[in-house]
Amino acid sequence: MKFAYRSIGIIHSPFKTTKGIPIQPAGAEAIKGTIHIYPEYVKGLKDLDGFSHIILLYHFHLNRDSKLIVVPFMDSRPHGVFSTRAPCRPNPIGLSVVKLRKIKGNILEIENVDILDQTPLLDIKPYVPEFDQFPADRIGWLEEVRGMVKDKKSDSRFD
Amino acid sequence: MKFAYRSIGIIHSPFKTTKGIPIQPAGAEAIKGTIHIYPEYVKGLKDLDGFSHIILLYHFHLNRDSKLIVVPFMDSRPHGVFSTRAPCRPNPIGLSVVKLRKIKGNILEIENVDILDQTPLLDIKPYVPEFDQFPADRIGWLEEVRGMVKDKKSDSRFD
Repeated sequence: MKFAYRSIGIIHSPFKTTKGIPIQPAGAEAIKGTIHIYPEYVKGLKDLDGFSHIILLYHFHLNRDSKLIVVPFMDSRPHGVFSTRAPCRPNPIGLSVVKLRKIKGNILEIENVDILDQTPLLDIKPYVPEFDQFPADRIGWLEEVRGMVKDKKSDSRFD
Repeated sequence: MKFAYRSIGIIHSPFKTTKGIPIQPAGAEAIKGTIHIYPEYVKGLKDLDGFSHIILLYHFHLNRDSKLIVVPFMDSRPHGVFSTRAPCRPNPIGLSVVKLRKIKGNILEIENVDILDQTPLLDIKPYVPEFDQFPADRIGWLEEVRGMVKDKKSDSRFD
C-alpha cells in the first residue's frame, strides 16, 4: 500500500550539511532551531504551547538510498536498519523530541535540535511522559556503546 | 512538498473496529498482537530482537478526514490536533511503543498493543531510554485529565 503525505512546515536549524550533527536530541542540548508552520495548519497548534516537549516526525530529505543493512554512526558493525535510527530507511521518517520554547503565530522556537536545516515537517505530537516512557530493560547492540550518544556526531555516510 | 511512503508490513491485533481500543500503550498492558513484515524487508530486522521495546510508526488507515481542531478521547474541550494524539491529523501517522516478545522469520510478536487490526506499518525503530526519555515538566491540557489514560477507551468519533 502507498500513502501520500505532505509537509506541514519546515524545520530550520544551524546544521546545513549532514556532517557534524548531534545524532540524537540527547547530544544536542541547547541547540536552537525554529519551525515555520504553513499558514493553513496554524489552527492545529492551539494549546500546544502548554507542553514543554514535543515529538517531531519529519522527512529525511537528504537521504538518497534506503538500505536494509547499515553501519550506524555509533558502531562499526552492520545492523538491520530497523534496529538503528539511521536515516536510510525504507520510509525515511525521522523522529525527534525537542524542547518547545515559544510559539508566535506560525513560528515555533525549539531547543535540543538534532535535525538538518530545511527539513520538511510531517507531524507534531505532544510528548507526555505517561504515554512515552517505558521501562525498557534491553537495548540490544546499543548496550555496548552506551554513553557514546552525547558526543557522537554524524558524518556523510548516508548521503 | 509531497512524499510517497509504502507499508513495510501489517499489524494484527484483537481490535477490529475503532471502538473500545485503549488510547495509548499504557492502557493496553498485556494485549498481544503480531506484525507480518513483507519478505522484501525482513533483512532489516537483523539485531532487532535484542531490544525489549520498539517504536512503531504506522498509517491510521480507518481515519477519513483531517481536522485541525478536535475533541480528543480524554477531554470534552476542543484542542488543536497537534496538541493531541488523535488520528485525524493532516498526515495520519500513528506512533506507539510496544513490547517486543519474539521475532520468528518475518513475524514479530508484540505486547501492549493499542493499534487497530490490519494497520499498515511504515517503520520500526528501537526504543532506547537514553534517546527517548525526557524530563517533560509541562503537559498542557493533559495535566487536568492525568491518570485517565489507563482506563480510557476509544470511540468512533474519528471514523
